[in-house]
Amino acid sequence: MRAGPAASMPPSAAGAPIDPARLAAMMEAVSVFGGGEGGAMMRLALSPEDKAARGWLAGWFRDNGFAPAVDAIGNQFGRLELAGPGAPVVMVGSHLDSQPNGGRFDGALGVVCACEAVLAVRTEMQRRGVAPACNFVIVNWTNEEGARFQPSLLGSSVFTGAAELDWALGRRDGDGVSVAQALDAIGYAGVDTVAVPDAFLELHIEGGPVLERAGRPLGAFARFWGASKYRLAFIGRQAHTGPTPMAERKDALLAGAYVIAGLKDLAGEYGLELHTSVGRLEVFPNSPNTVPGEALLFIELRSASPEILAKAEERLEVMISAAAARADVAFEVRAIDRRAAGRMDAGLLALAEKAASAHGVPVIALDTVSGHDAVSLSAVCPALILAVPSVGGVIHHPTELTAPEHQAFGAQILADMLLALATQGLSAIRHGGESR
Amino acid sequence: MRAGPAASMPPSAAGAPIDPARLAAMMEAVSVFGGGEGGAMMRLALSPEDKAARGWLAGWFRDNGFAPAVDAIGNQFGRLELAGPGAPVVMVGSHLDSQPNGGRFDGALGVVCACEAVLAVRTEMQRRGVAPACNFVIVNWTNEEGARFQPSLLGSSVFTGAAELDWALGRRDGDGVSVAQALDAIGYAGVDTVAVPDAFLELHIEGGPVLERAGRPLGAFARFWGASKYRLAFIGRQAHTGPTPMAERKDALLAGAYVIAGLKDLAGEYGLELHTSVGRLEVFPNSPNTVPGEALLFIELRSASPEILAKAEERLEVMISAAAARADVAFEVRAIDRRAAGRMDAGLLALAEKAASAHGVPVIALDTVSGHDAVSLSAVCPALILAVPSVGGVIHHPTELTAPEHQAFGAQILADMLLALATQGLSAIRHGGESR
Repeated sequence: MRAGPAASMPPSAAGAPIDPARLAAMMEAVSVFGGGEGGAMMRLALSPEDKAARGWLAGWFRDNGFAPAVDAIGNQFGRLELAGPGAPVVMVGSHLDSQPNGGRFDGALGVVCACEAVLAVRTEMQRRGVAPACNFVIVNWTNEEGARFQPSLLGSSVFTGAAELDWALGRRDGDGVSVAQALDAIGYAGVDTVAVPDAFLELHIEGGPVLERAGRPLGAFARFWGASKYRLAFIGRQAHTGPTPMAERKDALLAGAYVIAGLKDLAGEYGLELHTSVGRLEVFPNSPNTVPGEALLFIELRSASPEILAKAEERLEVMISAAAARADVAFEVRAIDRRAAGRMDAGLLALAEKAASAHGVPVIALDTVSGHDAVSLSAVCPALILAVPSVGGVIHHPTELTAPEHQAFGAQILADMLLALATQGLSAIRHGGESR
Repeated sequence: MRAGPAASMPPSAAGAPIDPARLAAMMEAVSVFGGGEGGAMMRLALSPEDKAARGWLAGWFRDNGFAPAVDAIGNQFGRLELAGPGAPVVMVGSHLDSQPNGGRFDGALGVVCACEAVLAVRTEMQRRGVAPACNFVIVNWTNEEGARFQPSLLGSSVFTGAAELDWALGRRDGDGVSVAQALDAIGYAGVDTVAVPDAFLELHIEGGPVLERAGRPLGAFARFWGASKYRLAFIGRQAHTGPTPMAERKDALLAGAYVIAGLKDLAGEYGLELHTSVGRLEVFPNSPNTVPGEALLFIELRSASPEILAKAEERLEVMISAAAARADVAFEVRAIDRRAAGRMDAGLLALAEKAASAHGVPVIALDTVSGHDAVSLSAVCPALILAVPSVGGVIHHPTELTAPEHQAFGAQILADMLLALATQGLSAIRHGGESR
């Protein structure tokens, strides 16, 4: 293990000292569910592996005195009520689902660090003999990844009201299984209602190279990019790839190829300001000797600038029409999901900076391009994401890694922030907000 | 029903009159297995539907006095021995497997017409009180389509020795199921050995527009195109489509898109002489918010000219390298299957012309661009494919259709050719060959 900030941390700096060994043991325990060789993780939302990981968390809630709750979209909560029913609620957590062949830290580290941090705060408050000023709820959000069911952030979006419950329950995976069916199948179609908290905190791996390159152990996502996600079908005509004359083909995949290539060029025009991708492509009937009759593209446009995003959408729509005309096929835009760009809570950011400065460490302000549950929550309450370094900037891949000392330091700052909220209540972040 | 050649045919013209109603009833019967709405057919090789269709054919063999045999690659034979063990063998048939969401006539019509034609010849020889000069074998070849298992023409290629049995048994479908496992599962891992015949005849839908546009009811594939089929993987690096900077992505699908677009342009350079396609594309992990780590393309190049095909392969390989460099990914050519261009048997073609001329109908000489089992057989014995018109040239689609009178007329010419072989033996095609 490299010498990191946690290793050199003076004992007095940690308001609520976390236990790095306990944290590491929890990460090991949860990584069993869906874990494969070389760090690979296959824990798709509402799969048997996800069920097993949820079972582990439910057991942890039970063993540690947290009251469990599951809502109708399967979000899994554990409530620690130390301050009485009327006190403010601070929610903390992330998600346990993973990408296919993803890594073990994306999401799960945030849930495990939430568990560790709340335990540390409880212990510290007990040691001080003072009742906390707020209650804590740990959360595991359903289908954050959007790998099995689209869109991503499904659980947190229903929680905030950004998505309708019935609509969300009707989303289907590639095999036609609905979210409602999948929830039933794993026993997580819950009936509990959980209120919007007074603040939400999430710890997450950066999933980018900035912290590592800066040699810094901690960041916070202060600004989030917007995204426009298209589900686009080109509709051609199935035909034999042998005799059918080239001029008579209506090749849906060819039109898809024009759009994939065109999106790359479009991003190039905007330098670092626009990200574009086609991550998923479904071809029908997908037989080697049949001209594709349909190609379904999952397109993403992302930018911190609403103006660039709007312009990119216009350009995409022109590109789609041109590709369809060139390949002599039709098209249907089957869905557009849009997420606006914005800023996370300034008071929570100031609180993070104060907690980190006690360890002599600055907090690097980052953009998050990807969606996070805390971005969903930011629409309804103060929210912030602490970011810990990703080795090589890698995410969504088995080699995804956050060094143990960085895991521990992130958990420590999270615990210190929760301790400030437990001792000062919400004034901890209102003051922080005013001081900026 | 339109008035077609069969309807206006004088009774004397048919050497061995077929029964159009019996033919139609057999087409209806076999279309039950895997048949769906609007003419759709889903009878993938060695699937439960294929097993059911094979069961139907086995019952037909039993009911009509044909001796059944199944070889190690699952080719299904029925032998009618009327001429004694030492006599020449004429084999006739096609395949019962279909494309996914294909039509009902591609393949099945050829098997059913073989059944009808051989019955008609038996009846006619019995009426004449003459023993035939040859024996007949009806065949249903395994996995002609190449939709479930690659390559196509698998059963006939093993039969001729062009493919090794063990290699063929080891081919796997998209779910990892091998041909050997699939044969076992449906009870068609046979142990019989069937000899190469003295001639092979196949009736097949044209699957192209030439006959319909010419207003002619019959063609014969006199020349077959060659094909080079590549299985090409681009290997990039999985990463999150959100934060990963565009310049750092290694997008395997992007490279695939460059090749798909490039292949279309390449075909354009050769006018009608070169067909290119990517009919199947597998993307891994195929998640909307993950940069594709791998894209597997099933590429086909087809031409009647060996020179053009060789040049197209060179151009493709340059294109692959350029696409990989441009998208910053690696690539692997995982397999290349090549089928040489060539000509079908001139003697059988002359026999077809003679049989059709008795009905006042010419035989249109066609190229076949797609593979057919008779093309496999042409490497080891005289072989020919009779082609019947496809409405709108459609094939590999539920709307695939051959008019009933065209089905019947094709079956009639097939029967008349078999009758000539039954009465004259192989001299019927040796003379024919010399007369051209």
